[in-house]
Order: sequence, then structure tokens, then C-alpha cells
Amino acid sequence: MAAKAGERRRGYRAGLGGEMLAEFLGTFVLILLACASVAVAVVGLPGSGRQVDAFGPANWLIIAWGWGMAVVFGVYVSGGVSGGHINPAVTLAFALRRGFPVRKVVPYWLAQTAGAFVGAALVYASYRWAIDAFDAKANLARDESLNTYSIFATFPAEYFGGSTWGPLLDQIIGTAILLLLVCAIVDTSNTGPLSNLAPYLIGLVVFAIGLCFGPNAGYAINPARDFGPRLWAWIMGWDEIALPGTFDWFSNYWWIPIAGPLIGGMVGVLVYDLFIQHVVKARTEPEPGRVPTPETQSD
Amino acid sequence: MAAKAGERRRGYRAGLGGEMLAEFLGTFVLILLACASVAVAVVGLPGSGRQVDAFGPANWLIIAWGWGMAVVFGVYVSGGVSGGHINPAVTLAFALRRGFPVRKVVPYWLAQTAGAFVGAALVYASYRWAIDAFDAKANLARDESLNTYSIFATFPAEYFGGSTWGPLLDQIIGTAILLLLVCAIVDTSNTGPLSNLAPYLIGLVVFAIGLCFGPNAGYAINPARDFGPRLWAWIMGWDEIALPGTFDWFSNYWWIPIAGPLIGGMVGVLVYDLFIQHVVKARTEPEPGRVPTPETQSD
Amino acid sequence: MAAKAGERRRGYRAGLGGEMLAEFLGTFVLILLACASVAVAVVGLPGSGRQVDAFGPANWLIIAWGWGMAVVFGVYVSGGVSGGHINPAVTLAFALRRGFPVRKVVPYWLAQTAGAFVGAALVYASYRWAIDAFDAKANLARDESLNTYSIFATFPAEYFGGSTWGPLLDQIIGTAILLLLVCAIVDTSNTGPLSNLAPYLIGLVVFAIGLCFGPNAGYAINPARDFGPRLWAWIMGWDEIALPGTFDWFSNYWWIPIAGPLIGGMVGVLVYDLFIQHVVKARTEPEPGRVPTPETQSD
Amino acid sequence: MAAKAGERRRGYRAGLGGEMLAEFLGTFVLILLACASVAVAVVGLPGSGRQVDAFGPANWLIIAWGWGMAVVFGVYVSGGVSGGHINPAVTLAFALRRGFPVRKVVPYWLAQTAGAFVGAALVYASYRWAIDAFDAKANLARDESLNTYSIFATFPAEYFGGSTWGPLLDQIIGTAILLLLVCAIVDTSNTGPLSNLAPYLIGLVVFAIGLCFGPNAGYAINPARDFGPRLWAWIMGWDEIALPGTFDWFSNYWWIPIAGPLIGGMVGVLVYDLFIQHVVKARTEPEPGRVPTPETQSD
Repeated sequence: MAAKAGERRRGYRAGLGGEMLAEFLGTFVLILLACASVAVAVVGLPGSGRQVDAFGPANWLIIAWGWGMAVVFGVYVSGGVSGGHINPAVTLAFALRRGFPVRKVVPYWLAQTAGAFVGAALVYASYRWAIDAFDAKANLARDESLNTYSIFATFPAEYFGGSTWGPLLDQIIGTAILLLLVCAIVDTSNTGPLSNLAPYLIGLVVFAIGLCFGPNAGYAINPARDFGPRLWAWIMGWDEIALPGTFDWFSNYWWIPIAGPLIGGMVGVLVYDLFIQHVVKARTEPEPGRVPTPETQSD
Repeated sequence: MAAKAGERRRGYRAGLGGEMLAEFLGTFVLILLACASVAVAVVGLPGSGRQVDAFGPANWLIIAWGWGMAVVFGVYVSGGVSGGHINPAVTLAFALRRGFPVRKVVPYWLAQTAGAFVGAALVYASYRWAIDAFDAKANLARDESLNTYSIFATFPAEYFGGSTWGPLLDQIIGTAILLLLVCAIVDTSNTGPLSNLAPYLIGLVVFAIGLCFGPNAGYAINPARDFGPRLWAWIMGWDEIALPGTFDWFSNYWWIPIAGPLIGGMVGVLVYDLFIQHVVKARTEPEPGRVPTPETQSD
Repeated sequence: MAAKAGERRRGYRAGLGGEMLAEFLGTFVLILLACASVAVAVVGLPGSGRQVDAFGPANWLIIAWGWGMAVVFGVYVSGGVSGGHINPAVTLAFALRRGFPVRKVVPYWLAQTAGAFVGAALVYASYRWAIDAFDAKANLARDESLNTYSIFATFPAEYFGGSTWGPLLDQIIGTAILLLLVCAIVDTSNTGPLSNLAPYLIGLVVFAIGLCFGPNAGYAINPARDFGPRLWAWIMGWDEIALPGTFDWFSNYWWIPIAGPLIGGMVGVLVYDLFIQHVVKARTEPEPGRVPTPETQSD
Repeated sequence: MAAKAGERRRGYRAGLGGEMLAEFLGTFVLILLACASVAVAVVGLPGSGRQVDAFGPANWLIIAWGWGMAVVFGVYVSGGVSGGHINPAVTLAFALRRGFPVRKVVPYWLAQTAGAFVGAALVYASYRWAIDAFDAKANLARDESLNTYSIFATFPAEYFGGSTWGPLLDQIIGTAILLLLVCAIVDTSNTGPLSNLAPYLIGLVVFAIGLCFGPNAGYAINPARDFGPRLWAWIMGWDEIALPGTFDWFSNYWWIPIAGPLIGGMVGVLVYDLFIQHVVKARTEPEPGRVPTPETQSD
């Protein structure tokens, strides 16, 4: 996500294996930090067990900063090797419009989802005492506890009243913003930041999306981020809060934070290309009789 | 706002059409993120419906960060094509004192206002479930609900007691600070940041204005930011909270966040030029008998 | 504070007059934003009038960010012309140990204090409605209202119980940290940031001091910041909260945020020079028989 | 931590003495700011004495930002001289996998611990009025007051219920994240930030760890950070909260924030080297018949 995909990797001998390791590690770091920030808000801080709801505004700032920083460092860890996608929606959008090789899409997706799954497992390993204490205090069985489940995966706000379209639209909008802004930030023909600060700004995009669209449906905006930890939560006993039963596979919420981001990511990159990229491209074709001047770093 | 207006665009073949697209998209991103951050504070977070008032200090941090980041990314999206004004007050001030072509002022204004209008529409599309649930819980009709209206456009604090001068002065001061600081940040003859980080710092200017002058009158400091979403809110049924009736067109608040910022922006750029610019300019004229040394990047 | 004092200004024809204008404007920006952020916390936000005390942790974050950003932009506005001191303690310390001309110390002090005074006046002009409404709700005369006074100048925490040494030590420590860290940040022989980002980091120093030492005595750490607004508050009727009576001139608190910062600033620069500077200096003398290599930007 | 250890120091004549001074000063700055931010939350802010618990979410943001900024500036102060480790776990990990000289490990550890001890002493000198007022209001003797003790050193959350493994695992995970991300940030063959901004990003790593893993056991993730202030607290009368009695030396908690970070730091650097470093290394060996191109700054 930080590096100019095709271009940078040409100098590497990493091969797909090394890139998958980097995507695994980057998404692992993302989930390890990010889901843990929800754990801090919901079960970690001393007063948390007594809160009627875990998502007051100060808690929300903890979560939004936690997710933002998690993206910053997930991209810094993996950016130089794999391009730092750490999100299947980024990988798909870059395959469609930024020349990322199509044959690598599914391997990247697998590495990202595996990294998210292992990251969720380590968050659980670290916070299981806090989770159990919280549920015990609330007198809830694990598969009744939406609060502790929320550490791992997303669900729509009550106010949607069961609507499918509401949270799906939310996921499309959120991920469209993500890809639109990632395209702007890595585009040094526009005003993309130099000095290797793109990962920092990309993390702040996710911070912003959390502040502005988070409460609707938990701002997954990343299929691996949602499905990996959801699978872990399902295995660890959150049961039907996490995934519907075996024979009820397509009946429920889990596909929205997969389909929505994949659609939204494509929308975002298309919007960037329609509004900005064709203009920037026009610029790079030299005007007849005009000597191009190298751009100085302060441009 | 980020790029050195005249200079940068010379290399483009974008023309006014491409620039208007960029201003539209930049202002769209601004409003899509920023108004949504108010929606999070007022109707999005689970506890929001129970709050006596939606603007406690932790909510205010969400809003101030949301607006700040919205400006960061609005400018990053559009900066390389149109200069990233995304604000009619910036466009006017740059036309007066920074050589921005006067013939482009009105087209920029139209693109900015249209972008803000469409951004507000998408915020509404995403948050209408939350808005309706909030108003239902508060037992208010839409045109009685100042809280849900506040997602879209601004109004003065109660303590002004109906004064016109108070909020007008507030808008002049706020926008003067904005332009004064934007002039400083894009002035690399002063200590303006390099590495394409001006958009980041410009967003932090708006974060600062929100923290320091926001509650007075909602810190519009941008006529397009206020009028576009206000028009949308009027259409969607907030009625006379948003705009006065057809025959009462000039009688009310809506013109203050238009006139105030246009005046304030001019004040800000004049103050910068009086206090700083003439000094910096003196510097660039070589002293007799002195060989100029190139400035290194760390200067 | 941002620019390498002596070195940068050599290329200017600004002269002392231009530098004083820049220091005036930088300190004006500092106070205009910073004191206004306290006004937001104390009298601006809708719930503020109902708070038992105005300095809860979320309000404190508003104030700490407000002051930090105010310093960022005060230095960006003035850094290229005057060095961006905007603080008499910085000016004094740089005169003692960084070759800042002694004859300019008092003119800088005057410009800084005047800028702070005018900044406070404009904060008052903007927030007087809110101030009056707050005091009316609290049923307090202006000269009884420590809360509204706190917008302008500082006072020690109750827990000092009248001690002079406690707040004086606090001011010495706070300003020593400020100068120690400013010296580190502008020292590119150490790891000072490049790309003209020193003003950003210097603002974060003040953000950090606010978070870590603010509540003791309001972290003036800047004689101009405290005395200018204090004088304004005295004139506007906060009377003996601001300054003691005519015949009681030396009996009270006001001298502590002047003397403490001036002492602390000198301590800070001395500590930097003792622990770090002599080591860095040793480095710049070439080792015998060793060809110096130019440092690359990423060093 | 910021500078490329071996490489940068080659140009210095600092010698071990100068490096120890820098590590002392850097860790001193770390503790002076960071422990003071806890003091602000627990005993400094006006409402703090009335809070049931000092670690609500807004207070937690103060603490997380305070520690993050403390690391930023601790590294900026010392980075150019000693590499800016300010943490024995960093020193050990860099000795194992980054060529830091083994003979310097123990001297660095001593300098770091001494700096932390003196930093804690100055925090105490500044906040002793506030500490005594808080304990008096709570009617607690000093050696009963976990709240005021928490200003200095760490302890595990109640929900661990006396488990040793829980907090030990937490310290291992937290410090592994720290070293993993520090390795990424200083690796400019990956996407490490340029323009001397590594210290800023490293501080944000600690901000993130505080937001995401702080409440478990106070995120020491640094043996010197915990043991130095713990020793000071023990001397000043927090007694057996800080350290167990003379004959009970090995029976208690104090060794966990020493052993955990030392183990975790090694884990973190190993994970980075296994997943990323071997790939980056492969890249630097030139492909046969391929002319290496210099990387431009924006890469």
C-alpha cells in the first residue's frame, strides 16, 4: 500500500514466498495491535467492567488511534517487501488498476487472512484473563457476550434494525475512501508525501475512517481483518455471534465485511482514476516544444 | 492550498476542467469525512442518544480530529492538480495576493460547493438510519432537531444571545488564522515543511482552530463547507433550521459563514504579507557583492 | 527556536525590525490559539458551565493539544525570519549558549510580550460573550472567577498550599525540559528532524510538557505567555486574581512564571551542552588520517 | 534505537563515556516526562482525587500520549550519540542481532537504569505536594497507596488473579512488538522513514503499545524504566508495594518487567529477521547482469 507496487518490487529477489511472509507479518501486526486496542476499551481498563456500554467517546478515541497506529506499523513492517497491502481489498484494487499481478492476488489474500487469524489468537492469549473476568462480572456466557466478541470482529449498529443495505453501503463507502486516499498518498505525481512517510499518512486515513464511519458497522474495511479474527472467535466459543451454524452458512452478517470492502476498494480506485489520475497522466506527456524540468523535492 | 499555486500548475495540461474536478473531489472528501465525524459524536456512538448534549470534551476531540484529518486528505487528493484550495476563502485570498487567476475564482467556488453538497448527501445516505433512530428516541421531528442538523451545517452558540457581530467576528478570526498559517506553511522561503508534508500541517491548522475556536459558531471557516451541506439539509427536511423561508431569504444566519470566511481569509493573507512576506522578499534580493548560497534541504 | 539562529539569519536583510515583527506575530499566534483552547474547555463547550471543575482529563487533552499546536504554528509563522523563539526564556538561553546577539534580547522580549498581550486581547474579544455567560451562570463577579481568569494566565494548584518553592521548581523543570529538547531538535549533528519539521516536533514538546507537568502550575514555561495575558486580564477587571494591588507589587505569584522559566531555560541548555553537545563537538573535529564522509539525508 | 547503530557511531569520538552520558540523559528524559504523565492522571488534575479509579479512558489517553512523546524526545536527545536505546531490552537485542558491541551492554544498562532512577527522583520532587495531598484525601499511608505508587512503577491488573504467566506473557508480547517495529522503522532498506523522523515513529510505537497492551501490566517493556523508579519508590516509603522485604527478595513481581522485556526484545528482533530481513538481504545482492540503480529519496 505504501510502495509503488510494481516498480519497487522489481529490484527484489524476494519472490512470492517472501512477499507472502511480509503480508502475513504485516496483517499479524495490524490485528495484534488493533484488536488489542478494542480489548483495552472493553475489558482492559479498570472501569471497563462497570460501563453500560464500552464505546463512549473517550474509548472510541483509544480504538481509533489504536487502529490507525496498527495500520501505520503494519505497513512499515511489510511495505518494502510486499508493498504493504495487508488488506485483500487493496490487493484486488491494485490488481485491477495498478498493475499488481493477478496471479498473486489469491496468495496475498491467504497470507493476509492467516496473519489476521494468528494475530487474533495472540490477542486472545494475552487478554483471556480480562475477557473471562469481564464476562463473569456481567454474568454472561461467552456466546452471549457481544462486548467481548467485539474485540475480534465487527457487527452492525442497532440503529440499522436488521438492514443489509445499511452496513453494506457503509463498508463500500469506508473502503472506497480508504483506496481513494491510499491512491492519492502513494501518488508522488500528485502531492504524495516523501521521506518514506506514506505509511504514516495511510495509518491516519484509517484513524480518520474510524472517527468518521466507525460506529456504523465497526469499520472492517478489510476482509482479512474481519474474517480471520471472526474465525478465531468462532473456534473459541463465541459461536453464533461470530458465524452462523453449519447449515445456515449464507444467512447472516459475516459476508458483508468481505463483499463490501472488495466492492468499495474498486470504487475508490476508480474514483481516483476518473477525477485525478487522467489529469496527472496528461501532465506527464510532455507538451510539444517544452523541456521537462525535474521536480525538486519540495514540490 | 498545499502547492505553490501558479508555479506548480504550469506543467499541467489539466486546464480548468481538471482543476474543477480536483476541487470537487477534494471538497467532497473533506465533507464526507468531516460531517461524518460529527455524525459519530451526535448519533453514531452507542451512548450518543442518551447524552444531554452531544458536544462534551471527548466528543469534541473526535470532531476536531475528524475535521483536521478531513482537511489533510482533501488537500492530498487535490493538491497536485488544483492546488488543493477546497475552500472559497482560500481561493479568494490567493487570487488577491498570490497570483491565482481571477477568472478561475467563480469556477473553483462552484466546484467546491458542489463537492460539499454531494459529500453531505453521502453522509446522509450512510447515517440516515442513525439520524432517524436518534430523533425518534428524542421524540423530535426532523425540523425541530438541532442535534441532527448540526451534522451538516453550523450555528452560533447560545451564549451569543442572538448577536450577529459575535459569530461574524468569530468567523473572521478563524479564517484569518487559517490563511495566515496556510501562507506560512506553503512558504518554503520561511520554514514551510518539505517532503510534501504541507497538507498534513494544513490539516493540523484546522484541528487547532477546532480546538481553539470551534464552539463559538461551529468553525465553518469555509463558505462551501457550510452552504453545500446546509442546502442538502434544507432539502432533506431540516427546513427553517437550515435556511429561512422563501420570502425571508436575507433575514437569518446562513450568510455569516459565507461572508465571515471571505473577509477573514483576506485579512489573514494581508497580515502574513505585512508582517512576514515583505521581510522574506527583502531577503531574496541579493545583497550587493554577496554570492547567494543554495539552501540545503535541512535549512 | 526552529532555525539555527545565527546561521540562518545571515542571509536576511530583515534587520532587527523585521525580526521583532516576526516575534510579535509568532507570539500573537501562540496566545491567540492557546488561550482560546482554554476558553473552549472552560467556557466554550456546551456542558462547560455545568462542570464542577473545568480541567477533567478530556478537557485537559483539548488544552494540551491546543497549546502544542499553537507552538507548532507560532514557530512556523516566524521561524524563517526571527528564529521562532516566541519565548523570552528561549531568547535568553540562546544568547547565553547559542551565539544569539545579546543586544537583541530585550527587543525580542518586548516584541514577544506585546504579541502575547494583543493575542490575549483578541481571545477576549472573541470569547467575551461566553465568559460573561459563564460567570453569570456561576453567579460570580469577574474578579472572583478563577475559572474565567484561567483562560489568560496561570496559577498554582491548590495542593501546593501556598508554597513558593513548589511552583517555582515546577517552572524551572518545565522550561529546562523545553530548552533541553529544543536544543536536541534543532541539532542536526544529533538526530534533529530535517525537511523543516523542527517546528512540528517543538510543538509536540510543549504538548508533552502540558500532559506531564501542566496541572502543577499551568505550564507557563514562557514569561511573555504569562505576563502579557495577565496584564490584559488585570486591565479587563480580573483585578487581584491577575496582579496584586499597586502597593503590593512584589508580594504575589506573578513573578514565578517569569523567573522560573528564565532560570529553567538556562538550566536546560546547559544540561544539553554538558551531556550531549561536547560529545557532538568532539565528533566534528576530524580524526587524524580520516577522510570525512558527507552525511546522507537519511542519517 | 533511531540511528543505525554501528554505522553512525563510527564517525564519533564520543567513546563509551559519552555514549553512557547520552543513554543516561535519554532515559532520564523518558522517565521525567512519562512518569509525570501518570502523576497528572492520578494526582495532578483537579478532579483526580475524587475519581474512583485513576485509569478511565480519557486519563489513559493522557498516559499513552505522555509515554509516547517521552520516547520520542528521549530518542531525539540521545540518538546521534548513543543510538538512543534508552531501554536495556533494545541494547540486548541489538547486541544479539545488530552488531552492537557486547562489551558495551552492561555499561548501557547501568546508564539507563541510573537515568531512570534520577528521572523518577525529579518527578517525585515535583509532584510530592500532589502525592501527599492525594493520599491525605484518600486517608491512606504511603505504603498502602497503590494509586500514588503507580506513578513510578508497574503492577499487573487485578484480573490476572495472581498469575505469573499472564503478565510475563504480556511483557514478552509488548516488548517483542516494540523491537519488531523498531527494526522495521530503522531499516531504510525496508520503508523506514527518512528526514530523521525515526525517533518520532518509534515514540508512536510506544503510544500504540500503551493503547493496545497497557492495562494488562502497565507496559513497562523496559527493565530500566521499571526498576529505576521502583527502587526510588521503595526508598521513598512505598515499601513492599515496590519491592518485597530483604529476606523475600525473589518472591514477588519485580522481576517480571525485567525478564519479560529482555526475552521479548530478542523474540521481536528474531521475528523481524526471519520474516523480513532475510528477504531484504537477498535484495541487496545484485542480480547477475543487473546494474543497481540508486534509490531515490521518495522510494
